[in-house]
Amino acid sequence: MEPLEIAALVERFVPDGHGKAASLRVAIRKAVASRLLKPRDELPSTRKTAKVLAMSRNSVIEAYEALHAEGVIETRRGARPKICALPEAKPVKQQAKPKATLSKRGRALCMDHKRDYAPDGHQVLIPGLPDPNLFPRDEWARTLRRAARLRHDGSDMYENYRGLPRLREALARHLKRTRGVSLEPDRLFVTTGTQGGMSLIADLVSDPGDIALIEDPGYLGARALFNAKDLKVQPLPDDLSKQADDTALIYITPSTQSPNGERMKLDRRLDLLHHAARSGAVLLEDDYDSDFVWAGRDVPPVFALDKNERVVLHGTVSKSLLPGLRLGWLAVPDSLVDAVAQGQRSLGLAASTQIQASLADFIDTGLFARHLRKSSRTYQERMNILTAEITCELGDRVSVSPPDGGLQILIEFSPDTNDKNIAEAMQAKGFHVPPVSRYCLKSPMRGLVVGFAQANEANSKAFCRALAQVLDGR
Amino acid sequence: MEPLEIAALVERFVPDGHGKAASLRVAIRKAVASRLLKPRDELPSTRKTAKVLAMSRNSVIEAYEALHAEGVIETRRGARPKICALPEAKPVKQQAKPKATLSKRGRALCMDHKRDYAPDGHQVLIPGLPDPNLFPRDEWARTLRRAARLRHDGSDMYENYRGLPRLREALARHLKRTRGVSLEPDRLFVTTGTQGGMSLIADLVSDPGDIALIEDPGYLGARALFNAKDLKVQPLPDDLSKQADDTALIYITPSTQSPNGERMKLDRRLDLLHHAARSGAVLLEDDYDSDFVWAGRDVPPVFALDKNERVVLHGTVSKSLLPGLRLGWLAVPDSLVDAVAQGQRSLGLAASTQIQASLADFIDTGLFARHLRKSSRTYQERMNILTAEITCELGDRVSVSPPDGGLQILIEFSPDTNDKNIAEAMQAKGFHVPPVSRYCLKSPMRGLVVGFAQANEANSKAFCRALAQVLDGR
Repeated sequence: MEPLEIAALVERFVPDGHGKAASLRVAIRKAVASRLLKPRDELPSTRKTAKVLAMSRNSVIEAYEALHAEGVIETRRGARPKICALPEAKPVKQQAKPKATLSKRGRALCMDHKRDYAPDGHQVLIPGLPDPNLFPRDEWARTLRRAARLRHDGSDMYENYRGLPRLREALARHLKRTRGVSLEPDRLFVTTGTQGGMSLIADLVSDPGDIALIEDPGYLGARALFNAKDLKVQPLPDDLSKQADDTALIYITPSTQSPNGERMKLDRRLDLLHHAARSGAVLLEDDYDSDFVWAGRDVPPVFALDKNERVVLHGTVSKSLLPGLRLGWLAVPDSLVDAVAQGQRSLGLAASTQIQASLADFIDTGLFARHLRKSSRTYQERMNILTAEITCELGDRVSVSPPDGGLQILIEFSPDTNDKNIAEAMQAKGFHVPPVSRYCLKSPMRGLVVGFAQANEANSKAFCRALAQVLDGR
Repeated sequence: MEPLEIAALVERFVPDGHGKAASLRVAIRKAVASRLLKPRDELPSTRKTAKVLAMSRNSVIEAYEALHAEGVIETRRGARPKICALPEAKPVKQQAKPKATLSKRGRALCMDHKRDYAPDGHQVLIPGLPDPNLFPRDEWARTLRRAARLRHDGSDMYENYRGLPRLREALARHLKRTRGVSLEPDRLFVTTGTQGGMSLIADLVSDPGDIALIEDPGYLGARALFNAKDLKVQPLPDDLSKQADDTALIYITPSTQSPNGERMKLDRRLDLLHHAARSGAVLLEDDYDSDFVWAGRDVPPVFALDKNERVVLHGTVSKSLLPGLRLGWLAVPDSLVDAVAQGQRSLGLAASTQIQASLADFIDTGLFARHLRKSSRTYQERMNILTAEITCELGDRVSVSPPDGGLQILIEFSPDTNDKNIAEAMQAKGFHVPPVSRYCLKSPMRGLVVGFAQANEANSKAFCRALAQVLDGR
């Protein structure tokens, strides 16, 4: 090979790399990989190469040595460097898959029921979201900086898959105080949020083809997850005594039903516990909006009534602080503690230690409790503004009952209404208020789910005006 | 029911709660759940209850109203409150599972191969860990505080499952500069680390029973993960032409083989790409230690040579910054982009937005590059100290070759050595240096894997002295 050919290769593969040692390496490597240079081809001497590329000879020697170490060329003292023998580039057979394709498991994972109706960033009254303006940003940022400056020993390393010990202790105290749940920190795990925690529990206690029951209407994240785990998703029936005994998982939102906002009554709670104990099913209790209670108080989760190690409780700061923190927790029965620890490690579900330490401080200093009180008051005012506006503007054209808790209200229509059309029309008017039918399996319920976390007089009035227009067919 | 009985119930269920409205609610709720109070039982009037519990009548009314809302009692004007009808407490059948048990999938997930030999926190020379003292804690904490004070719009909410757009752009530039990889930020996803990213890809492209090939010896995290996904784990053979075509996944560490520290040669890289294209397998390329290169330079990952959309590249800051940040990335072929986005959302694998924003700033300000240069120099010095000490103290009793990269070295023994016994003896002497046989499937390789991230003259000397004693049978 002539020195000028080397120059041409560099020109071809690294157009802006003339005179740099790295360019020479990259060019030769690419020329070999693409078969422009063939096994046994000889390269020019280091002296000639240096001259034609206007590089120092030492740079060329260094590049050749690096290529030798990579297995691209062979160098021997006194001989010109030679391209190594490489596997023949047999053409890929026609029947091979042209690109990476999804497995059966992969296709199940992609059956995502949330894809339609994604908010576009300008829309308002979106359900399921807190108001990011209420996030105590400066206090949190200060706390986080302090937490990040400290060493957290094993938790800085790979032993943080159960969660930061200090946070698990703080959470145990917090859950005792706010939710009436007494448990040892050993049964608490810190997660990247409810979805990750539920994914882990589903992996641990269900097999593909098992039945998973969800509320109807019910939370779409649970439905997407159970589909991803290849479970048969069915509506949770009113009469559990007729339910077959082969259910693996039951997803419930007793504190604030998603999406209708009702608190579950005691008889239903006991009935579910009894059914779970009898059938062997695990209850996934999602306590997502339990920080915001508008009617009744202090109802502990079903988890607290469980005597048969059947309930896994999921909590999160996604509503009380910010979803983007990616922080939640799991409280599990003793019988699952070891398995959850191993699963968190194998599946890589641990949350950032620094974010965890910051939340521990936020709880311990009382900043978290103060923020919950304050934001709770604000959200209740906003709920009142929106419901008053709806009642006043839309009167008996729709049915609204204020929720027992949580950050969204349900506007119900008669079952013969096409709520998808109404939601699409509202979408076009700037309101992301999904139709209830999206959350339904068999339920005939029709309506709109409206988030009030950012409601104010202006957007509540605008919403009612828009809805009136849509209902009038304008 | 008599007023005094109410007092007894409160005493029994809330021993320290006398006189508080919450205690009354809790006591009645628990008494009903445990059947001490039965359906139709009447409670004393609010007046009498208030008197016997030394509470204000308004507090009692409030408690009764809350219990009514929960479905525990019925209140009607003029009548005494009554316990609601509740489902009969049928005894749980004997054959029911007494507690939550693991499914087949759950048992696979718990086949964790790392459980033995966990470091106890005082041991040194642990492989796979960076030195937390090198973490630029104050600079990071300042950057993180700044990042946490800003709003990140959709990424503060639930739209962060692909990763913060700003970080994905910064990572694309960083990978171009440091790894010679050119790709659009659209093909990059931010993860909670390599384990989480691999879990997602395994879910997407493999089904239970498929074959997964790993290097032999090879990384335990990959083996645990593939077992968790119910794959058949087999050693990656030298001669790929004889490998059957039904492989779903191939896990490789070409930049720094785990655990032996060798860089993969070009012929092997091309051979793997060719095999993957022919068989339909996906290559999981783990670039975990690529920031630390001791021999050769600038070898881009196999990902950069891939023309058939077969390679997924995994990167992490676990070695370069801290594992506890829980931050990594995935670079995926175009054909997997949509599926990875949906999977990240359904499985809850997103990383904290604030940590992401901080890393983006760290990259953009050059702090990250400076830290990599500095820590790389330090680690190389430590490697030299440890290898010199071993060569000097243990001479030809062991075989050591300095690794091409990464933070651990392999001390090899002859294949008839029981390296487990030696590792256990070293464990007792304060050194967590696992036996190579732990990482082997069929390979006869025997030795110890020693981390030098925290090596210094004192612990290197102590290590060699301890190893000499163990080899002497002392």
